[in-house]
Amino acid sequence: MRIVLMGTGNTATVLGRLMKKCGHELLQVYGRTSSSASALASELETNFVSTPGDITDGADIYIIAVSDNAIANLAGELKLGNHLLVHTAGAVSKRVLQKASRNYGVLYPLQSLRKEMDDIPPIPFLVDGNTSEDLTLLYDFAKSISNQVAKADDELRLHYHLAAVLSNNFSNHLYTLAEEYCKAKQADFRLLLPLIQQLCLRMNRYSPSTLQTGPALRGDSATIELHLKLLEHMPGIKNLYTSITKSIQDHYRRTDN
Amino acid sequence: MRIVLMGTGNTATVLGRLMKKCGHELLQVYGRTSSSASALASELETNFVSTPGDITDGADIYIIAVSDNAIANLAGELKLGNHLLVHTAGAVSKRVLQKASRNYGVLYPLQSLRKEMDDIPPIPFLVDGNTSEDLTLLYDFAKSISNQVAKADDELRLHYHLAAVLSNNFSNHLYTLAEEYCKAKQADFRLLLPLIQQLCLRMNRYSPSTLQTGPALRGDSATIELHLKLLEHMPGIKNLYTSITKSIQDHYRRTDN
Repeated sequence: MRIVLMGTGNTATVLGRLMKKCGHELLQVYGRTSSSASALASELETNFVSTPGDITDGADIYIIAVSDNAIANLAGELKLGNHLLVHTAGAVSKRVLQKASRNYGVLYPLQSLRKEMDDIPPIPFLVDGNTSEDLTLLYDFAKSISNQVAKADDELRLHYHLAAVLSNNFSNHLYTLAEEYCKAKQADFRLLLPLIQQLCLRMNRYSPSTLQTGPALRGDSATIELHLKLLEHMPGIKNLYTSITKSIQDHYRRTDN
Repeated sequence: MRIVLMGTGNTATVLGRLMKKCGHELLQVYGRTSSSASALASELETNFVSTPGDITDGADIYIIAVSDNAIANLAGELKLGNHLLVHTAGAVSKRVLQKASRNYGVLYPLQSLRKEMDDIPPIPFLVDGNTSEDLTLLYDFAKSISNQVAKADDELRLHYHLAAVLSNNFSNHLYTLAEEYCKAKQADFRLLLPLIQQLCLRMNRYSPSTLQTGPALRGDSATIELHLKLLEHMPGIKNLYTSITKSIQDHYRRTDN
């Protein structure tokens, strides 16, 4: 496919690399500032523009990969007629694109993307389109760059986005607190990485609900009390310890019944 | 080393396999019931006993790998003179062993171990001993079965145990809630696995505190409100969403100052 890529941040950069690697033709990179647009275009060996009016009309798919709150503004400056326009956001409706083109949709990478990654990780894509033809075209396009593609309308995509926040943002925060605790106690957080990574690998075969262990699940109140005492001078971690312990106990009481 | 292994559960089984694989000589398996002791001894191609009095006195290390609250009882039935006795628990003091032998310590595997694992995962060990000779011997022994070994007294081991609960038990609970949410919304939790696994791999190179993303960190209150609305009929997940969002915001406010 011939692609115009709008954006120069983490998502735009990684998607640009992925599309190029998979044999798609990047016609142009658009960026608000010439310097960032030029840098990404140079890496992707294509041209750049920094004015929406200079965007070519010769592409098959126009991809807006900018921050969530900048999508509507950028779309407002585009007049693409019937060229297919998509954004890449999890929590933004596809309808913010409807004034810019008669054909629009979403190509949402369900992965945390960073420019500085050496390798491109596996990226599941959720696709949506305002017509069944657009949806099919985007599904096939996503299949050409990823092994995992699913159709998801605005509502379902938002559910995935929320589940991703629970899984990824929130668990990362727990890892951050564990690291903070280790630093305070002269322990080496890196010794915990095999444990953390083993859990993540085991979810390939087992549901996390069957992998739960620990004092909250066992109802081991002596260990819980001991832990809470150790956290006495760290009220933030202590509060969270209490909330999650309660949540685990409530969850297994509920699912046991 | 010549080993007597006491216990037949997950930890005893996986440690038994690991020690055998690394060339140590398993003299005996002890289990409270003949059937479980016999089954593990058969897998490990050794003998079994089911009475503490029948335990041989010819081993270099005696390993108690039973549930936390059964350690003291079993130790109370042992009279090992000066043979080195260890337990494998994170949150139990080594002193529960002091009446059973003049030489005792801890060999704590900082990993979640399950019998049904096909492969033995990387296992960091935390070791402790009541004399510096015992500590050195246990350190060297642990090095013979693992690449990651650290010395940790009762107090430091408890800190690791707490950090492991935060990292492993609590994040597993978040994965469980994310899966529960996905099921309720007809979303496929497995599409989130690449995201979860990528985070775990990236911690090999980056501190989790630098990997935080998401609406709580960005102060994106519109998305947070939207998520809370989606969770209206799931009060357990909603409460946790609120606590962790607050914790993320407090954490970055604190560390920014």
